[in-house]
Amino acid sequence: MLEEIKEIYRKYGGEVVEFEKFEGNVDVGYTIEYEKRLEEVDVCFFGLASGDLNPLHFDEEVAKTTRFGGRVVHGMLTTSLVSAAVARMPGIVVLLEASFRYTKPVRIGDVVKVVGEVVEKDRRKYRLNVRCLVGEDVVAEGYVVVLLW
Amino acid sequence: MLEEIKEIYRKYGGEVVEFEKFEGNVDVGYTIEYEKRLEEVDVCFFGLASGDLNPLHFDEEVAKTTRFGGRVVHGMLTTSLVSAAVARMPGIVVLLEASFRYTKPVRIGDVVKVVGEVVEKDRRKYRLNVRCLVGEDVVAEGYVVVLLW
Repeated sequence: MLEEIKEIYRKYGGEVVEFEKFEGNVDVGYTIEYEKRLEEVDVCFFGLASGDLNPLHFDEEVAKTTRFGGRVVHGMLTTSLVSAAVARMPGIVVLLEASFRYTKPVRIGDVVKVVGEVVEKDRRKYRLNVRCLVGEDVVAEGYVVVLLW
Repeated sequence: MLEEIKEIYRKYGGEVVEFEKFEGNVDVGYTIEYEKRLEEVDVCFFGLASGDLNPLHFDEEVAKTTRFGGRVVHGMLTTSLVSAAVARMPGIVVLLEASFRYTKPVRIGDVVKVVGEVVEKDRRKYRLNVRCLVGEDVVAEGYVVVLLW
């Protein structure tokens, strides 16, 4: 099913980022970086998968009346890129914890860059501090804990 | 674009949950509940929107070799249902913080139920403790902070 939906996704302007593993030995100080453009199709895909059809993300008329002045991307769509970033670490990656503060709105068409650094290691569990950036602006920040098998 | 993609989503077996607002006055003790079945199409949609094509979610052969014994749903897809749950609270809902521990695997086809309760209120900011359940099992738990405009 994935290949068929990938074609549909591309047709609607989605950016397919190849899934390539990062290299190196993971230890404290190991850094990751990953970026992706969030398009309208991403907001639709995330909205349907989650069921979050909040008008703030889909209805320009409603969104215009808010402090944001227009539609914004789901916060959890932005931080879903953290899932994609850590999944690229070496080994089989299992997410154990994720914690974020959403600090600025992200607009449709923005390129979100995730940067992360391993700050703690406990056997096969790794804690990374992470930030999501649009240009120089931090739009979300927090941490994740992953298990590497 | 949403309506077209909604049709494609339905065709691939996705469950479209109507976006209906919850009622009542939000204060400490206010509870929310929301559930949705997570299908293969949801894993594909989430995987493409985020770029998380971790084989643990897409490749049965790889997933079989892990402790999970087969494919599991992305943790952040499970907790994206929390975004959908809080978006149904009265008013315009903006997510400020989200923090989760992932405690058990979720399988394709599982119905995930989100239950939440407002535990703190500070002017228009509300903190909710939330749990995601599959049957009786807690699969993720944590909290969110939302702003209601």
